[in-house]
Amino acid sequence: MANILENTVNVITPEVIQKHWQGHRDLSRRILDQFPEKELFEFSIGGMRTYAQLALEMIDLAAGGAKGLATGDWSIPGGPKHNNTDHGITTKAELLEQWDKVTADIDQYFPQIAPTRWQEKEAAFGQYENTGIGTLLYLIDNEIHHRGQGYVYLRALGIEPTPFWARY
Amino acid sequence: MANILENTVNVITPEVIQKHWQGHRDLSRRILDQFPEKELFEFSIGGMRTYAQLALEMIDLAAGGAKGLATGDWSIPGGPKHNNTDHGITTKAELLEQWDKVTADIDQYFPQIAPTRWQEKEAAFGQYENTGIGTLLYLIDNEIHHRGQGYVYLRALGIEPTPFWARY
Repeated sequence: MANILENTVNVITPEVIQKHWQGHRDLSRRILDQFPEKELFEFSIGGMRTYAQLALEMIDLAAGGAKGLATGDWSIPGGPKHNNTDHGITTKAELLEQWDKVTADIDQYFPQIAPTRWQEKEAAFGQYENTGIGTLLYLIDNEIHHRGQGYVYLRALGIEPTPFWARY
Repeated sequence: MANILENTVNVITPEVIQKHWQGHRDLSRRILDQFPEKELFEFSIGGMRTYAQLALEMIDLAAGGAKGLATGDWSIPGGPKHNNTDHGITTKAELLEQWDKVTADIDQYFPQIAPTRWQEKEAAFGQYENTGIGTLLYLIDNEIHHRGQGYVYLRALGIEPTPFWARY
């Protein structure tokens, strides 16, 4: 049990961080849904990616991340879509469907994450060496980061985004 | 000791989340520093706040947050600046100086946070009821959210931001 922290202050439980992650994902899904169909796939600022591309990254990393933490297999289910223009996803409805599939996958995989996994170092997605918790925080932070960019896109389009604090 | 989690999986320690927070703050400081002086205080998109205003919010919440978690006193040191146009901060150098003061304050307050505080529910800043860890995650997430918006501002200004993963 060398990888389990003992005799230290316990700040958060797996159940709480699972709920925290799903709360963020719920908000990101709402932001996705607020984009008009055309702008979701076409609008961007300063040469950045569209929100559809950013959402595909969130989907891929969340799906591969939950599975990787639970099983050690870091492949992305269905293959990486965010860096592949040939993924065939062209509508908001398809994006939301993928999103919801991953939401269910996370809830399935999360209870399978062994206690030792949180402190164990591993190359996430075969390349990013980090502890389990470090990798999970990275995935959540990356989603918040890109969703924040989606807020600017919506504002630039004259759409008022769901408030950041609407996770509560 | 009713508020300390016992016999649960320990996901993260206070020391690790302190380092995680300061890593994010270091990146947010670099993004702040990448703004040209004029645009830091004047540029925005879609009617949003300038990055100087967003940075003042990050400064206020981090300073008041670290102190609040440690002491239960949630007042913002020096009074709230982010929702006060009369705060007298008009240069990037002054913003960076405030930022660095808060960085030192966090490192001073963090070891004073009692183990029970993480699970204890309290009205942060006198109004946001949450556990200690819930409040801290909110502060970090809020900073990532607004910093992500700063990335769009920089890109719109033709400036390449320091990469998101540069915290490692």
